[in-house]
Amino acid sequence: MAAPFSFRLIATDGIARRGEITTPHGRVATPAFMPCGTQATVKGLAPDAVRAAGTDILLANTYHLTLRPGAERIAALGGLHAFMNWPHPILTDSGGFQVMSLSELRKVEERAVTFRSHLDGATVELSPERAIEIQNLLGSDIVMQLDECLKLPAPRAELERAMRLSLAWAERSKRAFAGRAGAALFGIVQGGDDPALRGQSARGLLDIGFDGYAIGGLAVGEPQDVMLRTIEEVAPILPTERPRYLMGVGTPEDIVEAVARGIDMFDCVLPTRNGRHGLAFTRFGPINLKNARHAADPRPLDEASACPAARDYSRAYLHHLVKANEMLGAILLTTVNLAYYQELMQGMRAAIEAGQFDRYRQEIKERWSKGDIPPV
Amino acid sequence: MAAPFSFRLIATDGIARRGEITTPHGRVATPAFMPCGTQATVKGLAPDAVRAAGTDILLANTYHLTLRPGAERIAALGGLHAFMNWPHPILTDSGGFQVMSLSELRKVEERAVTFRSHLDGATVELSPERAIEIQNLLGSDIVMQLDECLKLPAPRAELERAMRLSLAWAERSKRAFAGRAGAALFGIVQGGDDPALRGQSARGLLDIGFDGYAIGGLAVGEPQDVMLRTIEEVAPILPTERPRYLMGVGTPEDIVEAVARGIDMFDCVLPTRNGRHGLAFTRFGPINLKNARHAADPRPLDEASACPAARDYSRAYLHHLVKANEMLGAILLTTVNLAYYQELMQGMRAAIEAGQFDRYRQEIKERWSKGDIPPV
Repeated sequence: MAAPFSFRLIATDGIARRGEITTPHGRVATPAFMPCGTQATVKGLAPDAVRAAGTDILLANTYHLTLRPGAERIAALGGLHAFMNWPHPILTDSGGFQVMSLSELRKVEERAVTFRSHLDGATVELSPERAIEIQNLLGSDIVMQLDECLKLPAPRAELERAMRLSLAWAERSKRAFAGRAGAALFGIVQGGDDPALRGQSARGLLDIGFDGYAIGGLAVGEPQDVMLRTIEEVAPILPTERPRYLMGVGTPEDIVEAVARGIDMFDCVLPTRNGRHGLAFTRFGPINLKNARHAADPRPLDEASACPAARDYSRAYLHHLVKANEMLGAILLTTVNLAYYQELMQGMRAAIEAGQFDRYRQEIKERWSKGDIPPV
Repeated sequence: MAAPFSFRLIATDGIARRGEITTPHGRVATPAFMPCGTQATVKGLAPDAVRAAGTDILLANTYHLTLRPGAERIAALGGLHAFMNWPHPILTDSGGFQVMSLSELRKVEERAVTFRSHLDGATVELSPERAIEIQNLLGSDIVMQLDECLKLPAPRAELERAMRLSLAWAERSKRAFAGRAGAALFGIVQGGDDPALRGQSARGLLDIGFDGYAIGGLAVGEPQDVMLRTIEEVAPILPTERPRYLMGVGTPEDIVEAVARGIDMFDCVLPTRNGRHGLAFTRFGPINLKNARHAADPRPLDEASACPAARDYSRAYLHHLVKANEMLGAILLTTVNLAYYQELMQGMRAAIEAGQFDRYRQEIKERWSKGDIPPV
């Protein structure tokens, strides 16, 4: 019954693309931002609030869900959509990135990566085949191949080894995936900051053939210009008729610059994590609510925002909640941030359709550079 | 413009009372449960969610708000209703109870209580007059006198001293309050578990004359039968035409038994605090979601509940959120608990109006005693 995965390009403006992904659980307008539902919840928000913020699709983490409550458990409970009460599209990562960043005593071999759970120390093995099996158990709409992601800077030999391993794993992932009904499988371009390796990786993935292509191994410590240059090198190699996903990126500015370079999909913990730490993303740029300048300020974060959380509470109240470490501070700022990210995506989509992307990009960057409204 | 405080009795059924309080910020159906908005937020819930759970009135804590962000700050920001975006009735306590339970190095004198802030160690003085001034600055609809509340058991001489001090403070509170437009001032009956002292306290307050009468100094360590006996001794002394507020109580069963003895108003941290610790209040009695029996249970907490949080998420998912220490677990269970408390109050109000209170009381207690539905 449900429509299988597909992608169509609706408009382009320069290199920027406006498209639409169809999945078995609904449509995704691109460029799209996917909030992180790491442990089967976008931290601090009920699913209806995630949706109300303008979210079409969210990301869930295979690594976390495998360790707790377990993929087989979630499958027995009807899959991840039912489990977390989110009937809309879900992309799952492969677990590879978190294995590298969170687990202990990991051992990367051609066959699989073996690691100790950061929760209970149990030894867990993750092969490309198991990563696919887990994501199929979860019932993900968009499945990611297992890859090895290195921090930058890294020696070229290491980058090459990890890239070749990721490519071999891509091929095994494709075989293991075997086209579960309607779902999509994305390959991941690796190769660090080395253009030649990135090119080999991208072309290798194209030979295998995927439903979409991700650029991994960025937002891992490199300067923004390295990230943008890498996108500029990789994007032209990727087929125009497939979605392009820049993994783990980023700040609002990163996202705008990546859209300008032809990226369609993003995920990042910044709007949710920073919301929990008292930082708001707004059209005035980032605002730190911990700052004493807000303590007596009766004005809302942004009276012109479409988001009630940005309009209906004073900066003084948000400051109080953050200082008092009240959950509602995290809830409201997470709401504000996610709504701002989604408003930004919506703004870019409209601008691309109208052929006004460069103007929009200039306008929002100018507003950011002016900074926050003056203190009262 | 706003209606001044008043109370009318709509129906009685035995000793149980169904009434309505009018305040400058709206009406309160009684028996009423007031969730704790300690630091100007009901922990974990936005104001619209507190309202949606069926809340007419909430309680805020003078002690916490005095220390942070300060009563003068809140007044400058338009008062507590505007500050916390809750346009409905608010009752504020006097700060006395938290001074006794949270502060360090307190010194109780006839003139005032002096203590060190648990936040920064600053020395703060709270007199009956200052407690009224603070609550007037907050713009509270129902103001509580400063009293001294002892833990039970306590020596009779101590109980008598604290009762007499509270009575002297009641008189000074009445003078200091001076009838701020539309707001109400409640006196607090003290005297511990001693019937003679309770009687002296109640009659002393009646001589001064208050808009409502609270029974304080219960839910402080005594067995339930001592609490209920004390209510039975005090309630008949109180005038029928004034609301009666049992402070800091309690479990659903405590509340039902107190309503049966003529109490109109309640506040307690249990539904919110227990929600943050994985415990749900339901018509099946309390349910501990940390328990492994829920780990694979696809059923909701209560499929017949009017509360979406109790219907739309599986016990397995709630178990997962609680075990993973996810904010959404606290949010959903706080919502469930507050909705259950308010459903219970609504059920008692309807039963009293219908002359069916005893039957309702028996039915819900029988359902609680059967316990949770059997495991899957």
